[in-house]
Amino acid sequence: MTDIKMVVAIIRPDRLTDVKRALSETGAPSLTVTDVSGRGSQPAKKSQWRGEEYVVDLHQKVKVETVVADTPAEDVVEAIAEAAQTGEKGDGKIFVLPVEDAYQVRTGKTGPDAV
Amino acid sequence: MTDIKMVVAIIRPDRLTDVKRALSETGAPSLTVTDVSGRGSQPAKKSQWRGEEYVVDLHQKVKVETVVADTPAEDVVEAIAEAAQTGEKGDGKIFVLPVEDAYQVRTGKTGPDAV
Amino acid sequence: MTDIKMVVAIIRPDRLTDVKRALSETGAPSLTVTDVSGRGSQPAKKSQWRGEEYVVDLHQKVKVETVVADTPAEDVVEAIAEAAQTGEKGDGKIFVLPVEDAYQVRTGKTGPDAV
Ligand SMILES: Nc1ncnc2c1ncn2[C@@H]1O[C@H](COP(=O)(O)OP(=O)(O)OP(=O)(O)O)[C@@H](O)[C@H]1O
Ligand SMILES: Nc1ncnc2c1ncn2[C@@H]1O[C@H](COP(=O)(O)OP(=O)(O)OP(=O)(O)O)[C@@H](O)[C@H]1O
Ligand SMILES: Nc1ncnc2c1ncn2[C@@H]1O[C@H](COP(=O)(O)OP(=O)(O)OP(=O)(O)O)[C@@H](O)[C@H]1O
Ligand SMILES: [Mg+2]
Ligand SMILES: [Mg+2]
Ligand SMILES: [Mg+2]
Repeated sequence: MTDIKMVVAIIRPDRLTDVKRALSETGAPSLTVTDVSGRGSQPAKKSQWRGEEYVVDLHQKVKVETVVADTPAEDVVEAIAEAAQTGEKGDGKIFVLPVEDAYQVRTGKTGPDAV
Repeated sequence: MTDIKMVVAIIRPDRLTDVKRALSETGAPSLTVTDVSGRGSQPAKKSQWRGEEYVVDLHQKVKVETVVADTPAEDVVEAIAEAAQTGEKGDGKIFVLPVEDAYQVRTGKTGPDAV
Repeated sequence: MTDIKMVVAIIRPDRLTDVKRALSETGAPSLTVTDVSGRGSQPAKKSQWRGEEYVVDLHQKVKVETVVADTPAEDVVEAIAEAAQTGEKGDGKIFVLPVEDAYQVRTGKTGPDAV
């Protein structure tokens, strides 16, 4: 049976349009988007506002989840990575998780056909 | 050991009340809800607003995550699917992911007992 | 190869600051935060507002996702649990999910090195 994978990408919000286009071009147009915030490996940044010091430690990001079966997860990862990259720190991370089953609510299809 | 699964459903926001009721009736009342947006396999829809054309390609959805151990994941999938279905395109998807361990913060319980 | 895990914690919003500090101290400072709502095993609570009865069945929570490779997932779970616990019902849950691969967008690193 074709494996099902969930590709979870945390990217810069302003790269979402390009990432959506890249996914469509890779043959994996379906996706779910969530507003998130987060931090990577950089230490928190101290800033000032009206003389008060405060710490910015969570940055606005967007989470893109794409479940795929026929399209290889590696192709999806590459498409997202290329579209999300600026070369600056904070470009994001992509994780691949195993999925045991899928179900399409309207049709009742299951497995890879439901993705 | 009883397997632990995470059932992830992306549904129409206006089906949430029925889905919550269905989950309670199936003996799996616990859940986590997130506002998301997404698209499935339909191409983006062109609309007009004050003469300007724009593309609606992400639709508001709700993500429901239910982790179960004693209740079979298939029963949870069926309960959600039945409550979420309208028969129109856009009804949603359900994915089942493996979970290796669970922990209940208040009690310190682990494994299936913590779910 | 070092295993990669995603630790997903649903906690009280007012415990987030302490949980972030605990994660940093455990050597796993990276995380993604999402506003969610949810319910555990307690039945819905009936309340009144201006004479109208209504049911509170979803409580505001925060989801914290931390993907780790070198730091053991159990250490992350313990750090979060200790920082999130108040002893009252509603303290939250922590789930550990397997991750098959990771990718750092800026550098192109893959696997445990990308986490
Ligand atoms: N290990 C992780 N677990 C969970 N979320 C992570 C992890 N690493 C990164 N993220 C998420 O990805 C976002 C972007 O991370 P970021 O690109 O800054 O990673 P990084 O490792 O610091 O890389 P860089 O050095 O290029 O900045 C973070 O704000 C966070 O939401
Ligand atoms: N493969 C997928 N990966 C991630 N999210 C998905 C996937 N497929 C669907 N979704 C999510 O589920 C929502 C509803 O999808 P939808 O029901 O339109 O799927 P579909 O395959 O197009 O089925 P239908 O033909 O019945 O519309 C999407 O808006 C998206 O958030
Ligand atoms: N099985 C589950 N699946 C998905 N989300 C869950 C599950 N259990 C708990 N949650 C999430 O965690 C939040 C907190 O749960 P909670 O701490 O109330 O769990 P509980 O089992 O009722 O424990 P307690 O008796 O200590 O309240 C919920 O609001 C929900 O978002
Ligand atoms: Mg960074
Ligand atoms: Mg559709
Ligand atoms: Mg509870």
